[in-house]
Amino acid sequence: MNELELVDRLRKMAGIGRKTGRGVIRGIGDDCAVFRPKAGEDLLLKTDQLIEGIHFPKSMPPDAAGERALARALSDIAAAGGDPRCCLVALAVPRSKSDRWILSFFHGLLRLARRSGTVLAGGDLAHDDKAHCSVMVVGAVKRGKALTRAGARPGDQLCVSGRLGKPWDQPIEPRLALGRKLAGKATACIDLSDGLSLDLHRLCKESHVAAKVERIPMVRGASLKRALHGGEDYELLFTLPPRMKPPAGTTRIGAIMRGKAGTVWFKGKKLAPRGYDHFER
Amino acid sequence: MNELELVDRLRKMAGIGRKTGRGVIRGIGDDCAVFRPKAGEDLLLKTDQLIEGIHFPKSMPPDAAGERALARALSDIAAAGGDPRCCLVALAVPRSKSDRWILSFFHGLLRLARRSGTVLAGGDLAHDDKAHCSVMVVGAVKRGKALTRAGARPGDQLCVSGRLGKPWDQPIEPRLALGRKLAGKATACIDLSDGLSLDLHRLCKESHVAAKVERIPMVRGASLKRALHGGEDYELLFTLPPRMKPPAGTTRIGAIMRGKAGTVWFKGKKLAPRGYDHFER
Repeated sequence: MNELELVDRLRKMAGIGRKTGRGVIRGIGDDCAVFRPKAGEDLLLKTDQLIEGIHFPKSMPPDAAGERALARALSDIAAAGGDPRCCLVALAVPRSKSDRWILSFFHGLLRLARRSGTVLAGGDLAHDDKAHCSVMVVGAVKRGKALTRAGARPGDQLCVSGRLGKPWDQPIEPRLALGRKLAGKATACIDLSDGLSLDLHRLCKESHVAAKVERIPMVRGASLKRALHGGEDYELLFTLPPRMKPPAGTTRIGAIMRGKAGTVWFKGKKLAPRGYDHFER
Repeated sequence: MNELELVDRLRKMAGIGRKTGRGVIRGIGDDCAVFRPKAGEDLLLKTDQLIEGIHFPKSMPPDAAGERALARALSDIAAAGGDPRCCLVALAVPRSKSDRWILSFFHGLLRLARRSGTVLAGGDLAHDDKAHCSVMVVGAVKRGKALTRAGARPGDQLCVSGRLGKPWDQPIEPRLALGRKLAGKATACIDLSDGLSLDLHRLCKESHVAAKVERIPMVRGASLKRALHGGEDYELLFTLPPRMKPPAGTTRIGAIMRGKAGTVWFKGKKLAPRGYDHFER
């Protein structure tokens, strides 16, 4: 297929053309997608990269890679308390990959897109030496209610969803329902994509507070090291006012304290931010 | 620098933190950027890739590459008649590139961002074998006034801005002022990023019409082949109702006709869409 044929095929797969939705009034096939915001909503914007050999192995089935590419970005929309609306996908693939690979990649991505109410509204295709995907997602949240990393206060409870220490190639299920529940309640929130120690450090730094971690719910068989510093849990780490009950499926793991911004204590010792840093040299 | 330090530095360079603007109420440094739309506006969404060795040579100075990455996406906002508001930048670089290279890339990108009123609101950093940048831009246009490829009607004038056949490594100046002028006047519009023959074919296909080209304003020294099929002019190709005067700096080059959707005639002969197709095999 050439680019025109491929785009035509993707347009059909995305279901745009027959009907748009979720605010997308013009989708795939034009210079820009056109999105009509609803009154009283703020928009959340996020971009994330998925690179072959770095964020997924060459051996991963293309539909799983496509689903993962979108899941990573949706996890950030969840962390901001938002509802996903649409996405744009920039994909570069080596010439050795077949049209079938590309279509299967989008098949996986669109599976999660449909499940989460995210319209594939546009994108860009190119060739490169290896597969490289950037997904940009637009989410929406009630005006002024977006969760950020910046609102945690001393005395707040520190909570996490699910269990930590997952193997890095586990499928990601973005915590969208929980994020929406937390919007307007949690004082700060971040998704665990680079490891508890680094992501909690980031949340504390933005909030100008310190934190102590007392316990960590772990998946069966995980090492403490993986649960503290492993990079691919995609659970939500959030803070709640002192007496608010943590939602079902979440655990109180510690508390926010006064202290040097970004300091994290684990069982009485300082915990260094050692999660996955893409630019550590 | 590690990732935290680099992001801090970019945040300072982008001027977010001290002040946000253009609708961006939370920028670099959180899971998502938060954007507050204005009432009565539609948003334009566009993503575009710039890959080392494909869209720019390894020898290009990093600031020129950064400027080019944003310019390509802004050209699409111009083609939709929009006003740019903010952008997200996903950048992957090889470990061999210095921090200075990365900062210089963003320096060039931010130069154009400031000139065009585009706030750098977020992004993502990673390592890859070669530099690979995806820019996502959000623009705004009066509700219902976005220009698309789909509105050209038989009898419309076919016009182009500037002169065609530029060498591919010329700096790009996105035609934003012209785009805004055309919004609500032009019946269809596209930016010339893949060559006149292919981009006009696309416009005609989406509008279900044919077109004839009678003359082409060319840059000094350009070949007719480059002007017809060369891929990097970044001028606007648009259609106007029959008696409307083309704006200053633009030329009437032909007309829209009834006919098989996508057919283009040049001086009495059919013109094959031969511009740059990223997926031609």
